[in-house]
Amino acid sequence: MRPSGRTPDQMRAISIEPGFTKHAEGSVLVSFGDTRVLVTASVEERVPPFLRGKGEGWVTAEYGMLPRATHTRSNREAAKGKQSGRTQEIQRLIGRSLRAVVDLKALGERQITIDCDVIQADGGTRTASISGAWVALRLAIDGLLEKKLLESDPITAQVAAVSCGIYEGTPVLDLDYIEDSNAHADANFVLLDNGNIAEAQATAEGATYDEEALLRLLRLARIGCNEIFAAQRRAAGR
Amino acid sequence: MRPSGRTPDQMRAISIEPGFTKHAEGSVLVSFGDTRVLVTASVEERVPPFLRGKGEGWVTAEYGMLPRATHTRSNREAAKGKQSGRTQEIQRLIGRSLRAVVDLKALGERQITIDCDVIQADGGTRTASISGAWVALRLAIDGLLEKKLLESDPITAQVAAVSCGIYEGTPVLDLDYIEDSNAHADANFVLLDNGNIAEAQATAEGATYDEEALLRLLRLARIGCNEIFAAQRRAAGR
Amino acid sequence: MRPSGRTPDQMRAISIEPGFTKHAEGSVLVSFGDTRVLVTASVEERVPPFLRGKGEGWVTAEYGMLPRATHTRSNREAAKGKQSGRTQEIQRLIGRSLRAVVDLKALGERQITIDCDVIQADGGTRTASISGAWVALRLAIDGLLEKKLLESDPITAQVAAVSCGIYEGTPVLDLDYIEDSNAHADANFVLLDNGNIAEAQATAEGATYDEEALLRLLRLARIGCNEIFAAQRRAAGR
Amino acid sequence: MRPSGRTPDQMRAISIEPGFTKHAEGSVLVSFGDTRVLVTASVEERVPPFLRGKGEGWVTAEYGMLPRATHTRSNREAAKGKQSGRTQEIQRLIGRSLRAVVDLKALGERQITIDCDVIQADGGTRTASISGAWVALRLAIDGLLEKKLLESDPITAQVAAVSCGIYEGTPVLDLDYIEDSNAHADANFVLLDNGNIAEAQATAEGATYDEEALLRLLRLARIGCNEIFAAQRRAAGR
Amino acid sequence: MRPSGRTPDQMRAISIEPGFTKHAEGSVLVSFGDTRVLVTASVEERVPPFLRGKGEGWVTAEYGMLPRATHTRSNREAAKGKQSGRTQEIQRLIGRSLRAVVDLKALGERQITIDCDVIQADGGTRTASISGAWVALRLAIDGLLEKKLLESDPITAQVAAVSCGIYEGTPVLDLDYIEDSNAHADANFVLLDNGNIAEAQATAEGATYDEEALLRLLRLARIGCNEIFAAQRRAAGR
Amino acid sequence: MRPSGRTPDQMRAISIEPGFTKHAEGSVLVSFGDTRVLVTASVEERVPPFLRGKGEGWVTAEYGMLPRATHTRSNREAAKGKQSGRTQEIQRLIGRSLRAVVDLKALGERQITIDCDVIQADGGTRTASISGAWVALRLAIDGLLEKKLLESDPITAQVAAVSCGIYEGTPVLDLDYIEDSNAHADANFVLLDNGNIAEAQATAEGATYDEEALLRLLRLARIGCNEIFAAQRRAAGR
Repeated sequence: MRPSGRTPDQMRAISIEPGFTKHAEGSVLVSFGDTRVLVTASVEERVPPFLRGKGEGWVTAEYGMLPRATHTRSNREAAKGKQSGRTQEIQRLIGRSLRAVVDLKALGERQITIDCDVIQADGGTRTASISGAWVALRLAIDGLLEKKLLESDPITAQVAAVSCGIYEGTPVLDLDYIEDSNAHADANFVLLDNGNIAEAQATAEGATYDEEALLRLLRLARIGCNEIFAAQRRAAGR
Repeated sequence: MRPSGRTPDQMRAISIEPGFTKHAEGSVLVSFGDTRVLVTASVEERVPPFLRGKGEGWVTAEYGMLPRATHTRSNREAAKGKQSGRTQEIQRLIGRSLRAVVDLKALGERQITIDCDVIQADGGTRTASISGAWVALRLAIDGLLEKKLLESDPITAQVAAVSCGIYEGTPVLDLDYIEDSNAHADANFVLLDNGNIAEAQATAEGATYDEEALLRLLRLARIGCNEIFAAQRRAAGR
Repeated sequence: MRPSGRTPDQMRAISIEPGFTKHAEGSVLVSFGDTRVLVTASVEERVPPFLRGKGEGWVTAEYGMLPRATHTRSNREAAKGKQSGRTQEIQRLIGRSLRAVVDLKALGERQITIDCDVIQADGGTRTASISGAWVALRLAIDGLLEKKLLESDPITAQVAAVSCGIYEGTPVLDLDYIEDSNAHADANFVLLDNGNIAEAQATAEGATYDEEALLRLLRLARIGCNEIFAAQRRAAGR
Repeated sequence: MRPSGRTPDQMRAISIEPGFTKHAEGSVLVSFGDTRVLVTASVEERVPPFLRGKGEGWVTAEYGMLPRATHTRSNREAAKGKQSGRTQEIQRLIGRSLRAVVDLKALGERQITIDCDVIQADGGTRTASISGAWVALRLAIDGLLEKKLLESDPITAQVAAVSCGIYEGTPVLDLDYIEDSNAHADANFVLLDNGNIAEAQATAEGATYDEEALLRLLRLARIGCNEIFAAQRRAAGR
Repeated sequence: MRPSGRTPDQMRAISIEPGFTKHAEGSVLVSFGDTRVLVTASVEERVPPFLRGKGEGWVTAEYGMLPRATHTRSNREAAKGKQSGRTQEIQRLIGRSLRAVVDLKALGERQITIDCDVIQADGGTRTASISGAWVALRLAIDGLLEKKLLESDPITAQVAAVSCGIYEGTPVLDLDYIEDSNAHADANFVLLDNGNIAEAQATAEGATYDEEALLRLLRLARIGCNEIFAAQRRAAGR
Repeated sequence: MRPSGRTPDQMRAISIEPGFTKHAEGSVLVSFGDTRVLVTASVEERVPPFLRGKGEGWVTAEYGMLPRATHTRSNREAAKGKQSGRTQEIQRLIGRSLRAVVDLKALGERQITIDCDVIQADGGTRTASISGAWVALRLAIDGLLEKKLLESDPITAQVAAVSCGIYEGTPVLDLDYIEDSNAHADANFVLLDNGNIAEAQATAEGATYDEEALLRLLRLARIGCNEIFAAQRRAAGR
């Protein structure tokens, strides 16, 4: 039924490889099937102007897609001279999702910038980014704790994200590119390991959906995120 | 309890004034309390490059906030030389919401551009924009039908939007600026008059939320949108 | 003779509605016939870098036209990523005109930014902007005087502006769009209520003009500005 | 009285050196005292999109100031990534002034671009640019006539420009930088050799001015332009 | 003597991993020690405007560095809105180097775009990019040959590049980051497998160098490129 | 054999005219045949952020080409909103070449900006720029020494540059535009008067070259630079 042969509530193979690059305070290569994203967490001992002197830190994110991460080459945003609306929307979502599980006061006056660069895209790049970013952030903060630069752990929970959608009339989990291009509704859920929701976004594509469908998509997302939480803990050595 | 003295499920006064400007094929001034947005619908007999020769039309939206629509002046995006991520996110949402109720094949090879310019902001500018935009679009298409430029009505339903949130622990409808700045969760629902959902977005701010809260917010949104649907029909003379 | 049936020295109906928006320190909706401009004056307790520490204030202006203020939609400058030469020329003129009647030392180290946003265009948007801006500025400064933030009134005179032109061989006052598109000469005069000139600009379009024509245009402008000065005083409650 | 010792109606030494560069169809180095501008006229056998297929030509202008043309170095506009409002205002004025003396139909479907680059600035760069540009244009069109690419001469008159201002209470002609920085009013007149006016711009700086002053400035401009017309004819070999 | 313990003429470990991503017509992950660059070759059946209709193809390159490829995070060029001079210089060099070994007529009217994205930087990113790019190009063209889209092989030679420099007075091969930051001269050579030179660039840093030093650097480069040519052949299956 | 009739090792006529403009601390008009570049050196008593407080100065360069310096008009970079890759590459080369002969500590905390603006192009604009820039810098520093703002001379040597190439199989010196467009290799050498090399860049165009050719080009460059060094000394009065 699904092009990949998966059952409706089946995730693609997830892999989160820590320490993929050596310079960043935290880094992972996260894969959801053929979607591969390099995520780094960079710690800087300064905060953006609106936070200076307030004793609080900040977590922010940037997102990019390599020009040939996709089936056909897309133009490089640096060459075009601006980031697309899609890019900006995604990087705002990633930053917000991580801040939902960080106590910014406990972080102190420092900024952690998460860079998510998509090396290969096959659907779900934003949710893979969020899921990998939590591990990169965890590793970077573990480093600060080890060096005694932080007294207490500012991370309050795990956060993960997954996409769901209605494909050929059936709610399915973790859409790949073929499903995503043909889905009638496309949802992204950002969930915490305590069951709470940090972000729910469900968009009609072609056909609108009803309340029951929204709830079924959310339940699929819970199944997927539980699997991701386990992968995150393994990658972060917890 | 609410700063404005409203009950949790009470909308602000809604007004949709058709024909606010004379040049546009459709135009309204929409107010949700002190939030006022000028919305115009412009018909052009051409489509964007990716649709040329496909016999389909397009509906798109742009959004702007006048520099002093807000409490303190913000910089003019035209002077800064780029639109913020927030602006781009909002205009993508408006366009998507309207396309959910338009049969693009029935529209023929023409584009309708919706311009939403916020004259005064007091929370809920994106949802007021969507709600007013449906009327501006309705008026523009009525004009095309009258001139026999369209054979059948491409609009398939009414669409409206409203914000909800959890303010001091209570789910409330149609947040104004004070509530919005202090809400623990902030949701925007785009609903059709047949009860279906075009878009659901619920974001944790400060505290995450659970599934029950999501459902209560959605129910408040239904109450609000029903009131907006009635105001839309009156404004569109239907 | 004139498309509108006006006599050569007849202005369109002028209206200046104070307090059109609630956040700005001063705001008006100014109309010259079908031309409608929203003007706000925003007070900020800081000056641009070149004035810091000099004990002087600054008055500056920005101008924009909503995309569908005109007969056909024009592209949004924020989306194009730059302001046109025309926009920049107009906002420089507005700022200069207001500074001609403000004692910047008496204003103290603060900046007042005038935002002129054209909601509907039918010729004469820059002159309507200047004429409305004086009232917005007056209201903002009245607020500063009331709050005792200013000891003396920095406004030294009234300033108003009007366009004139040679239409079908006859000098006429306050061109509307049809006249403007067909005029052989197009002039803008910025006058003070003491009779002095702050700015005179007269441009040949198609046919050049002689000194006598320049003087007749200036005399028409005096007639128009006297009417505007009266409207300004009424709007400002003076 | 004047810093340079000139009488109020005395121009600086004018020089217009034709053929200053070899590639352009027309080129001059124009000097008004220490103000030196390189002006080239480039003929291209195409017109801008809005004129295609209309059988008319176009004349347009661009203006730039070399970074160290001035007392202190200013930033290079190409490095800043945009042209200032002042630059755009000047290049629009130059283009308009030249179009006032060109029959665009007689020019045929071709564009002439005038480039004015200020090599050394000492006041009056825009008026020197216009005055030199007429010669560069004349030379370029002479070339087209010689090659029989044009049947009749599209240039209908000579055009020249000069600045005037009120310096220490006295109207003076052809302001240099010191005068310009201290003038109470600053005017630019673009005149035709038949006595007509193509453009009059008179701006108050510090003090507004009256009608009589405007007329006295215009009369000074006539004196100056007559001198420039003679220099233009010599440079163009007419 | 060298921080890494290498001898002066010793390369770092080279690895060229073909097929690193699945969408591109050719792709490799190239490593020179800790420097890792993802290179893709994208084939498009169109050419840039200046080549249309000439029966020739084009090979061009773009280069980017992920923000945290380096010791400290650098700003994302897409967010800054422009590519640095360094980036542009490098991508021009890569494109030129590849065109030196491609017969553009034999390629036909198609463009191959090489994207070089640095995942981890430790000196020599431009030379690793060129060396990997040849393999990505080779794989893309092998695909075109297999599909019979090309009749003959447009690649005329192998091309590889390596950096050399004078470190603590000694000419050394394949500088890593520590050496590069302290070298007195920094050279990049782009060589063909027939011994010819496509590009030689040798820049003094701190101290200038003499002709003999230039020749010694070139000889080191030959040693390094021979090793790279072998790695290229292995990666390309030749 | 050469289009100009020159022998292979013959330079074009060189002229370096000091004091071409009056505002800059140093300025020259440098000509290599028909290539003419205006070079100014501007002294500013501040350094870029990365050098603040380090007791060192900086020398940097910017480069531009007037739109009609070339055979056909090219677009103005200020109007396009960005500098081309070629422009950035050239200005980086000029700055680097001059820094090779300046002791930045001896210069003290000040910046000298070299502006090279090409008035007429006929090949070799970057090498003419470097050769003229040394004189402009020399004049600017002589002024600082005269005013006792510098204790010792920070200039450690003369630097000059010249292009060479292989034209119709023969290595030739100082390519003009026709030769440059048809050369099989194009090299630029930046040499010091003590014989050392500051920069060597040799690029294959169409055909690669061998080591012997590289050496022959370098020897031609020595001949040319010796002639330029003499012209520099004359222009600088040394």
